[in-house]
Amino acid sequence: MLDEIRHAAARQRTARAVRRMKADCKRLLGEKGELGGMATATDLIERLDSLADEELEEFFDFLAQDLSPDPQSVLKLAQAYAEQPDAASLLALTQAAEPARQELFRRLNRMPGGTEAVLRLRRALLKRLKARPELQVIEADLLHLLTSWFNPGFLQKKRVDWNSPAQLLEKIIHHEAVHVVDGWEDLRRRLQPDRRCFAFFHPQLRDEPLIFVEVALLPEMPSSIAPLIDKASTPLPADRYRVAAFYSISNCEPGLRSVSLGNFLIKTVALQLQRELPRLRTFCTLSPIPGFASWLLSEPDLSLLPSTRKSALAELEAARERLRKLCKGDLSALQGPAVHEHMAKEDVAALELLCSAYLLGLSPTPAGDPVARFHLDNGARLERLNPRGDMSGKGLRQSFGMMVNYLYDLSKVEASHAKFRQGEVARSRAVGSPL
Amino acid sequence: MLDEIRHAAARQRTARAVRRMKADCKRLLGEKGELGGMATATDLIERLDSLADEELEEFFDFLAQDLSPDPQSVLKLAQAYAEQPDAASLLALTQAAEPARQELFRRLNRMPGGTEAVLRLRRALLKRLKARPELQVIEADLLHLLTSWFNPGFLQKKRVDWNSPAQLLEKIIHHEAVHVVDGWEDLRRRLQPDRRCFAFFHPQLRDEPLIFVEVALLPEMPSSIAPLIDKASTPLPADRYRVAAFYSISNCEPGLRSVSLGNFLIKTVALQLQRELPRLRTFCTLSPIPGFASWLLSEPDLSLLPSTRKSALAELEAARERLRKLCKGDLSALQGPAVHEHMAKEDVAALELLCSAYLLGLSPTPAGDPVARFHLDNGARLERLNPRGDMSGKGLRQSFGMMVNYLYDLSKVEASHAKFRQGEVARSRAVGSPL
Amino acid sequence: MLDEIRHAAARQRTARAVRRMKADCKRLLGEKGELGGMATATDLIERLDSLADEELEEFFDFLAQDLSPDPQSVLKLAQAYAEQPDAASLLALTQAAEPARQELFRRLNRMPGGTEAVLRLRRALLKRLKARPELQVIEADLLHLLTSWFNPGFLQKKRVDWNSPAQLLEKIIHHEAVHVVDGWEDLRRRLQPDRRCFAFFHPQLRDEPLIFVEVALLPEMPSSIAPLIDKASTPLPADRYRVAAFYSISNCEPGLRSVSLGNFLIKTVALQLQRELPRLRTFCTLSPIPGFASWLLSEPDLSLLPSTRKSALAELEAARERLRKLCKGDLSALQGPAVHEHMAKEDVAALELLCSAYLLGLSPTPAGDPVARFHLDNGARLERLNPRGDMSGKGLRQSFGMMVNYLYDLSKVEASHAKFRQGEVARSRAVGSPL
Amino acid sequence: MLDEIRHAAARQRTARAVRRMKADCKRLLGEKGELGGMATATDLIERLDSLADEELEEFFDFLAQDLSPDPQSVLKLAQAYAEQPDAASLLALTQAAEPARQELFRRLNRMPGGTEAVLRLRRALLKRLKARPELQVIEADLLHLLTSWFNPGFLQKKRVDWNSPAQLLEKIIHHEAVHVVDGWEDLRRRLQPDRRCFAFFHPQLRDEPLIFVEVALLPEMPSSIAPLIDKASTPLPADRYRVAAFYSISNCEPGLRSVSLGNFLIKTVALQLQRELPRLRTFCTLSPIPGFASWLLSEPDLSLLPSTRKSALAELEAARERLRKLCKGDLSALQGPAVHEHMAKEDVAALELLCSAYLLGLSPTPAGDPVARFHLDNGARLERLNPRGDMSGKGLRQSFGMMVNYLYDLSKVEASHAKFRQGEVARSRAVGSPL
Repeated sequence: MLDEIRHAAARQRTARAVRRMKADCKRLLGEKGELGGMATATDLIERLDSLADEELEEFFDFLAQDLSPDPQSVLKLAQAYAEQPDAASLLALTQAAEPARQELFRRLNRMPGGTEAVLRLRRALLKRLKARPELQVIEADLLHLLTSWFNPGFLQKKRVDWNSPAQLLEKIIHHEAVHVVDGWEDLRRRLQPDRRCFAFFHPQLRDEPLIFVEVALLPEMPSSIAPLIDKASTPLPADRYRVAAFYSISNCEPGLRSVSLGNFLIKTVALQLQRELPRLRTFCTLSPIPGFASWLLSEPDLSLLPSTRKSALAELEAARERLRKLCKGDLSALQGPAVHEHMAKEDVAALELLCSAYLLGLSPTPAGDPVARFHLDNGARLERLNPRGDMSGKGLRQSFGMMVNYLYDLSKVEASHAKFRQGEVARSRAVGSPL
Repeated sequence: MLDEIRHAAARQRTARAVRRMKADCKRLLGEKGELGGMATATDLIERLDSLADEELEEFFDFLAQDLSPDPQSVLKLAQAYAEQPDAASLLALTQAAEPARQELFRRLNRMPGGTEAVLRLRRALLKRLKARPELQVIEADLLHLLTSWFNPGFLQKKRVDWNSPAQLLEKIIHHEAVHVVDGWEDLRRRLQPDRRCFAFFHPQLRDEPLIFVEVALLPEMPSSIAPLIDKASTPLPADRYRVAAFYSISNCEPGLRSVSLGNFLIKTVALQLQRELPRLRTFCTLSPIPGFASWLLSEPDLSLLPSTRKSALAELEAARERLRKLCKGDLSALQGPAVHEHMAKEDVAALELLCSAYLLGLSPTPAGDPVARFHLDNGARLERLNPRGDMSGKGLRQSFGMMVNYLYDLSKVEASHAKFRQGEVARSRAVGSPL
Repeated sequence: MLDEIRHAAARQRTARAVRRMKADCKRLLGEKGELGGMATATDLIERLDSLADEELEEFFDFLAQDLSPDPQSVLKLAQAYAEQPDAASLLALTQAAEPARQELFRRLNRMPGGTEAVLRLRRALLKRLKARPELQVIEADLLHLLTSWFNPGFLQKKRVDWNSPAQLLEKIIHHEAVHVVDGWEDLRRRLQPDRRCFAFFHPQLRDEPLIFVEVALLPEMPSSIAPLIDKASTPLPADRYRVAAFYSISNCEPGLRSVSLGNFLIKTVALQLQRELPRLRTFCTLSPIPGFASWLLSEPDLSLLPSTRKSALAELEAARERLRKLCKGDLSALQGPAVHEHMAKEDVAALELLCSAYLLGLSPTPAGDPVARFHLDNGARLERLNPRGDMSGKGLRQSFGMMVNYLYDLSKVEASHAKFRQGEVARSRAVGSPL
Repeated sequence: MLDEIRHAAARQRTARAVRRMKADCKRLLGEKGELGGMATATDLIERLDSLADEELEEFFDFLAQDLSPDPQSVLKLAQAYAEQPDAASLLALTQAAEPARQELFRRLNRMPGGTEAVLRLRRALLKRLKARPELQVIEADLLHLLTSWFNPGFLQKKRVDWNSPAQLLEKIIHHEAVHVVDGWEDLRRRLQPDRRCFAFFHPQLRDEPLIFVEVALLPEMPSSIAPLIDKASTPLPADRYRVAAFYSISNCEPGLRSVSLGNFLIKTVALQLQRELPRLRTFCTLSPIPGFASWLLSEPDLSLLPSTRKSALAELEAARERLRKLCKGDLSALQGPAVHEHMAKEDVAALELLCSAYLLGLSPTPAGDPVARFHLDNGARLERLNPRGDMSGKGLRQSFGMMVNYLYDLSKVEASHAKFRQGEVARSRAVGSPL
């Protein structure tokens, strides 16, 4: 009984808060000048932050339903434009077809703290999308706007080194997602002269890195990650650098998911390094293959692969059989270190064959591996598989220790990107196609 | 004969150049990833700059016609949305209703030099709009995008002083549009401790001021401009400042016309000065009235003014008559200095009355005076008329020497702005309404 | 036999190297213009760094003997000056009486890397002084020059905070000499808003802090160190700060020993904090008493103290006796934590009495405690003794856990300093004098 | 009568002010620690600035007489040192032989504003030296200290360009002493990409340039100044630069006279330009010859020149005779433009011969020309005479329009400097010696 009363009171509070938010949003949208509603917008930004969960849910409903274009009005304006396709009718139509929430977000974005508020809103939205697909209409608008606001042309690339503010380095340690930074001493090694780290910043979020990339300068293309992140290793002299290996790229702001910053970062960093160190000949990555193990362990029906040659299928099956035998029937043994200690050359070859099948789009979902998709879509090519590339627990679990180099040939990335969009994966000769 | 051949050749060249531009634009729009078409975009940016006049005309035609939404497709999608107003149909509709040129401009803007290219394009467009109103569809999109890109939240306010780079000061001298800066010594005086200058910058156009405002710190509200810009005047000590008078605001980038930056600049400057100098009590302007003289000289039918009181009209007519007599029939004599030397108190009052009628929206076009409209729409109020406020040649020609103070009471600007949008002009008691 | 040959060869090498150094020094001193000998000086700087130990010993001999003024020449010039005390004879005398090594050091100091080289030389010299007192003549010149070069007027004070370069913070961690910094998390706490850290830098040694001080902003004068350096403590809001407590001051450059920087640093920091936080009323330290325990354990003959009252001596002896009993005869038990757990009020009072005797100059060497001498000579006054102020191992060993506050009353420091020079120690009433 | 009374009163005031200054100076010198007397020093700095002329005269007397070493004490200590040349006796002697005013200046220099105060004092002193040679003892100490404080190692070289603060550029305009800067437009030209300007700054005088040099980047060694300072000239592209011509070097701080900064500035600028523009092959000057005309017009007895060959004297006399004829007896006609318009080749040769005699040390005072002495002592060599090099009024008056290039061959400057100190002037073959 008491509980019921309490719930009713809470519902009332929620209702009141959301009613007030809605009213403010409408008032803000009603303002004609840029000036109108500055106080309202500031107020909204502040209140957005303190919404309880249910209030937020209702607010999302409001954004999705009340601030979508009115179907009948749009239809009428579309008819008018079809009859008389002139400037006036087009302008009316364009404005009516644009969801009003876009303008709402733009007005919030104008005020101090607005950009952060919109990013936080999107973070909250992304968490709910799976459960509430109807909110996808909001997401479309947010992604559209953020892509424009976080335009690479507006971003600032900065080098991060041991001379950077501790405040920033602390964030780098926190956000490094690929190869965990084990404290300040570890970071220190990653910022020495034969390592480079670059981050993108946005003028509105002055001290917040958006994304950063870590690069190792090396005499040759690396085949395993351990030496690159070894705290005790000694930096090489600059005249030995021939290869720039991108070994880690991490996003810091979940509210920017799908706003592509990584490709621009990699490319501007590669261009800058080339200018600075003209002896560099190769720009590549040393990348994990996060989906390989779980794919193989899911016992995929290899005959369903878009393979064209019969022999290819046979080879793949033979490779799998070989590994099964090695593991005494349980392929997941490959996720532990023991099996790897006495693998024959042929076992390794079998593992490589299956991995190249996985990466080269033989897997049912061609976009199965997010890292592969990222680099291939950027126009990189699959250069080399590296068995025993990452023998850490995580490396074994993800991909039986296998790593891969993607090669960025700046003169070819546009062409490779275009081909990849048509389904063709660029690869070096070293990576034999099992097809 | 030769001429004809030459013309034909030129036409062919133009046609070829424009054909190539069009093809590139379409290719760029066809790219799906952000990466695709980086080279194409860079190329387009460069070529845009070297288009001959006719080529540019044709390019604008292409933007207006080929990159507008297709009426039939939009109509179909609007019908689909009306039938099934869900996320998918809305997304399809929104995308189809947005003119493709918006995406084109966005993609140019991503590349180095892109923002400048778009600004130059708009400058060229604005010059042609009057003659070619059908290009208004392009202008709508450009204004929409630039308003978003030059969002005050993305701008950086910087103080300009005698310690600023000469390069920047040179631009300030060049762009000062209200009270011409007569060389470096003049500027030097305007940057001394009792004067302030602030400018907005955009991260993409690092060293280019977009707009700047000049402020004088004074013991009381100023009634004439000459002492403010007197090179030989001595700065007052800081403890005497009570009034911050904005006496000049100038835009530097014609490509940003109608992108409102001035109101934000004035307000953030006022807030900063208030923090820095807590003894300041008044924030006002000392402004020109650029349209007053030409309005009065056009012999307007005063009875057409939206006047409600009969007596008001009579008073206005009497005032005009008085001035006519003073000028021996030719009101334009008020644009010379001689008449002003022996004006009676009543003559001055007559001039003030007519000026307040002009400013208070009695003039047929309520937005007749651009400076008045700017400040009133910002939420300032008409505070005081200042006869003999600017006795320079320009001041006499524009407004018979009359100047005006607009008052910014930060706690009231939102309300005043809202009222102004409904047709009501905020004014102090000192400004008698002739209505 | 072979050994002998080897030694002879080594001696020859040493002799050669030193001969060359000497010749270069003389050549450099022979140059008349500033320009002459730039190459020689650069060369010397480099070679100084690679001298072997014996070579350095010989080089010091050379500096001490060959570059001292020639007694007979000086005597003659002193006679000439006594006979005719004019400008010419004075100039000749002054120049002849100045050891030539001063000019040598000045010329090294002009070149890039010269200042560092001179500092390194002094570090090496200071280590040898005890064993070779005849080198004191070099030390006198070095101290004279460095005091002039590291003039506080030439130094730059910078705030160190969590936004400082990691490179600098690393040095702070390394050089903190009073309360060891236990890693980056510890440092982070010491740089939060209620803690301040300031360092002095020299333009020639750009990224090298010379000395730094750590300050805690508190509501009242602190009585124990543990809460100040507790990593987990929560910063207080700024409106609660009333006291600035200097709790650690560390030199970073051993080559600057006896070049007094600390007093200027404390005073400029105090002045800056007073400006920034006008509510601060008290500037004090929380200081260790490094020599107290070893003094008491040395069983000093208290009757030898410059005590004037008989009763004072009796009180002191009684206090010592009380503590002896508490410790069952062995006072060093006070250096362990156990005894402290059940000390009676009277035991604590006894300890305080002995400590104040030690600090107030009753100890045979009035300058017995270096920290006390530093602050008292700076003009601070002895404000309060804090039993159990530092119960760490180091604190117990040094001073049986006792700490002391010195108070900096900026309006009185000059007077207190003057008195201290005449043997009088300024103290608050709270610190009873056992005299 | 009244006048006498007034004078007496003034004398009394002076006496009082000086008495107080003296007392303060002595108190300051009596302080033992660095801390003591901070207030006294600050006070002295302030009062130094407001001393009337007679007060300053008396203060200089005090510095010269009272703060010189005591002859008898020094003599005694010199005897003691001669008897027992150990560390203690040396230290005592060194301290006693150093004039106490050195320590006074050092203590002033430690305080804020102290460096400026000492510089101002020296400026006042330099003006009086001629009339009061006994003050030379003060000057010796000031020069000694300032040379140490304005050690090039402590200075900061900064590039001055069109992006520099207007405040700094204004000072450059003001201090340019060689070729007057005719306003901002003139300066602007001198700061374009094919011109360079560098200045030295001292950390204590943050925004005050001490000395600056202007450089023109050119395809060949310049023979006349007009094109270099032509406001309307167009900058050359960077790939054409082969020669860096130093065409103006100006001191900004008269209090630093004789503290040599120019040679270091020229050399570090040359080194930097060489690094930055590896195609530069020649570093030279285009310099005035300020003393040439007045020397020739003084009708020097050429036979007194240290000429060794008889024929040389005859040649020189013949050249002078030739010019006399050209000028119809009055050589000063060469200071006007008319004569130069119809000079025969032989007349020009005669002028060159006499000029080279003047510069090559044939003139009775070998250091006759200050500009020549400066560059030759820096190790530059006399490279080429340029008749008609500066046809401005000043150029004609100073040197009949003649200019000279000095060449800086960085690999030879030390050797040339050494030779010059032994009386030998380095010259190119192009400059025929009249000897």
